[in-house]
Parts: sequence; structure tokens; C-alpha cells
Amino acid sequence: MSLVIVGSLNFDTIETPQTRKEMIVGGSCSFAALSAGYFSPPGVVAVIGEDFPQEVITLFQERGIDTRGIERLPGKTFHWEGRYGVDPNQRETIRTDLNVFQDFDPELLPDYRKAEILFLGNIDPDLQESIHRQADGPRLVAMDTIRFWIDTKPEALRRVLGQVDVFFANDEEVRLIADKLNLIRAGRRLQELGPSLIVIKKGEHGALVMGRDFMCAVPAWPCENVTDPTGAGDSFGGGFLGYLDKIGSFGEEDVRRAAAYGSVMASFTIEDFGIERLKILSHEEIEARFDDFRKLASF
Amino acid sequence: MSLVIVGSLNFDTIETPQTRKEMIVGGSCSFAALSAGYFSPPGVVAVIGEDFPQEVITLFQERGIDTRGIERLPGKTFHWEGRYGVDPNQRETIRTDLNVFQDFDPELLPDYRKAEILFLGNIDPDLQESIHRQADGPRLVAMDTIRFWIDTKPEALRRVLGQVDVFFANDEEVRLIADKLNLIRAGRRLQELGPSLIVIKKGEHGALVMGRDFMCAVPAWPCENVTDPTGAGDSFGGGFLGYLDKIGSFGEEDVRRAAAYGSVMASFTIEDFGIERLKILSHEEIEARFDDFRKLASF
Repeated sequence: MSLVIVGSLNFDTIETPQTRKEMIVGGSCSFAALSAGYFSPPGVVAVIGEDFPQEVITLFQERGIDTRGIERLPGKTFHWEGRYGVDPNQRETIRTDLNVFQDFDPELLPDYRKAEILFLGNIDPDLQESIHRQADGPRLVAMDTIRFWIDTKPEALRRVLGQVDVFFANDEEVRLIADKLNLIRAGRRLQELGPSLIVIKKGEHGALVMGRDFMCAVPAWPCENVTDPTGAGDSFGGGFLGYLDKIGSFGEEDVRRAAAYGSVMASFTIEDFGIERLKILSHEEIEARFDDFRKLASF
Repeated sequence: MSLVIVGSLNFDTIETPQTRKEMIVGGSCSFAALSAGYFSPPGVVAVIGEDFPQEVITLFQERGIDTRGIERLPGKTFHWEGRYGVDPNQRETIRTDLNVFQDFDPELLPDYRKAEILFLGNIDPDLQESIHRQADGPRLVAMDTIRFWIDTKPEALRRVLGQVDVFFANDEEVRLIADKLNLIRAGRRLQELGPSLIVIKKGEHGALVMGRDFMCAVPAWPCENVTDPTGAGDSFGGGFLGYLDKIGSFGEEDVRRAAAYGSVMASFTIEDFGIERLKILSHEEIEARFDDFRKLASF
């Protein structure tokens, strides 16, 4: 294990125009870890309550994911409830019960500190910084965030940005943090703050990776049936970093391929609710879709 | 000349947050013809008033564009005024003076009728149909439209769609006509109406080409300075069809490359106001950017 992922394991209640799913397993860490697991099983750092299903932990273990960093605390697991519009890009948060996640302040296990790649999923930027400090000089540090932290902790967020190599964000977030409407200029501004790689996730429009001296555009898979967009971004991040961890090098060609695998993993996740698709996905399906992505993007 | 382009030659007054340009030359036919001209100079069909500058007609002729189909009528040239927001994707029409364009009802010249490729630019769908009827069995017929015709002449528009091979539209237009929110399903629905190729232009997100048995995603060029987005879509269409006319075959690989050249041409147009960039663009610049697009999209 040389990839460590920090994030949330939680329950999601998802409402779409077609259906409603109550208390299904989700969370940035679930999607990222399962996605990464197809390339290089990571160690995970998260907190769960007494009600989190042991079978999901068992699934992680069966996939080779190191679950020693998951702490089970008395009380209930973090629960998020959201509603998607007819347009699956439109999402509204109905309810957020942090529960045991409120006191999430993990101490990295000794061997986790030696991680080569550290993925600081979307949590309080102060917490991201404190976890990063415990790590013993990882080769690559990546972070994700959400609008909530941009609005409430802009200073802490910018400080953490100055300490990482890879920043995952959607186009709205990149524009907001940089305070620039042109996406490319916004990305360049964020690079000035620290990360050499800005990975801009654009939902149905794919992703744009901005390196210091190259850019890469990967499409999204043209999907006719978006069942549940939850976790697409986390699956992208997990696939991206899992692939880099498997390859062990972070050159331009590696990053391009990592972005394509990220988009591949996201394209599977949205085909079913929660982690259902990732539960049954095969390596053969991943490679076949990677080839299909290549055809899609070739000219 | 085996490509004929029907559309508008007009004056645009453009306001952006930075500046205002009054009465500059624009129009779907200007952008499409100049773009196509870099690959295979087309014949054009359009109407102008007494005030339209002869030097633009001369420019067309210098590029090998057949201008015999341009009719100069007594009165003023069509004039459109629009304003772009801080977000260049946000456009508002301030004023539309149709002037001589109001009576546009062209008769194709005898040799224009033998066009191999006919591009019916954005005009009244009834007019598109009447022009198409005059053509002598072109190998490929393409059309463009705008929201105005979707709202005011939906029946005529669907009828014309049933008679063409290629439909250029932006994502909003595709969703509107098909009455489906999922872009891929919307595109499939439009294919059922007739066109075997749906070319969906997505502005800063590039374009998606849906064929009967293949799809192709081309990125937009990551542009740091969008000076004037006017004409990007028409330049795309002109580059796309000009390339196909030059190649003379319409297979999958040809279409993929045509889409990339379309995106290349659009990326140049938006770098300056109106047709300014297309006035000075070189073949070397086009080929260099095509190569850059290939690098951008490779993984």
C-alpha cells in the first residue's frame, strides 16, 4: 500500500426524479477507494458510526484495501441527503447530519505515514493540513474540496493549496477560488498558489488537466442513462491516483492516462446508485471502456 | 467549387465588457465561407445592401471564394447588435434590423445547383427547404439553425431535418428540438428524424459528433483570451465542411478530422473581433494548431 486516501464513509439519501434511495453507502472515501482499488488498493482513513455496515468494510478488504485507518465510534454515521433535478447536474442538499464525522481528527497509522501518494479528500482544510503534516514526505499530495470550504474557510484552503501537488475541483470551484471567469486563466492562477496539476472536472463535458507545460482534455463518456451522479468526482480522483500509484511515475504521459482512467471510473459510477456499479465492475470492463474512450477522442 | 454555403453577410455591433465594435462585418456566411476557404473555397449565396463593403467581397475573391451568388439589393444590409456578459457564453440580442435580408429568397445559379456539398446556414427553414429543392442531388446536405426557428417554426424545422445529412446545433438547441434533457438521447432522437450526423457544438467544451455507429468528442482550444465569440459556430461549420469537400469522402475518419478542423477554425475566430483573425490566418497556423489539438486530446 503506497496510496492513502482520507475522506468520508457515509450514508447518502438520494432523490432523483425517478426514484429515492434511503441510507445507501456513499462518501468520498468509498468511491475513491473502490475506484483506486482496481489499480492499486489504497489504505483508507475515515470515521464511521455503529450503524455502518460491516459488509462494506469486508468488501474493501476483499479488494485488498487497507481498512485499519477506519475508526468506528459510538454514535451514528455521517448522513447526507440530496436531490437531483431533471438535469442531473442540478443538485440540492436537503440535509447534512455530520454525526461522528463532526469529531473526525485522525492520527495516521505509522505505516500510513510512509504513503507515497496522499489523497486529502474533501474535508475541512485545517484537517487536511494537519493530516498532511503527519505524513513522512509523500512523493505526491492531492486534494479535493467543495464550495462550502471555499466560502467558509478561504484562507485555510489557500494555505493547503500551497502545500499540494494536485488539485481536483470542478470548473465552478476553480473559477471561484481564483476569482477569474476564464477557466484557463483561473487554472493558471491556482497553479501560482502551489499545485503543479489542476484537474478540472466538468461533469458531462469531461475533464481538463492543466500541467505546468502541457494540457490534456479527456471527454466524459456519452452516457444515455445517468442513474446517480453522486461520487463521479471521487471515482475520478480515485481512478486517477490509483493508476499513478500502480505506474509509480508521474510524467506527462502517465498523467494523461490517469485522467482518462479517472473519467472511465466516473462513467461507471453514475450508471447505478451509490457504490453498486463499483461492487460488480470488472477489470475487463474498465479496459474495454478505456479503449472506447480512445476511439471517442481520436481524430 | 463543389461546396455551396447559404447564409447571411451582415453587420454586427458587438459589445463586450471591455469594448464596443460598431458595424463590423459578420454573418454566418462570412465566417463559414472564410473558414471553408482554407480547405476548399466555396460558392456563397447571400444578400447584401448598398452599404456592404466591396473590400470584403474582394477578400472573398482573393481567397478563391465564388461570390456570384451574392446579390446586392437597394437598401441597407442586415444588422445585428448583441452584448456579451463577463461570461462570454452569455449573449443578449439588443437589436435586429433585417433590412434587405427580409426579402432573401435566392435562386441558385445553374452551376451552384451541381454542388456536391450544400450548407444551409441559419435562415428560415422554409427558405432552407426551397434552396435545397433547387439543388441537383448533392452528396451531402448540412444545416444549422437557431432557437428562434425552433420556437417559431418547429414543424418546418423538423421537415427540413428530415431532408439533410448533417445537423449543426449547440447542446441547448439539440435538447430543445428533441425535448430530451440527456444530450445523447436527444441526439439519437434527432438522428431518427433524418440526419445521420449530429454535430453538437458546446462552446468552451468543444464538440460531440454523433454518427450512426460512432461518436467523436473534440475539445475546444483552452483559450485564455476570448475576444469575441461571435461566429465560432459558423467557423466550425465552415471548417468542417470545407475539409470534407477538400477530402471528397465522408467516412468516419474523415468526419473525425473534419470535427477537429472545425474546432481549430472556431478557436482562431474568437481570438479577435468579427472576421479579423480569419483575414490574416495562415495555413501554417491552422496545421500547427491541429497538431496542438491532437496533443491536447491524446492519452
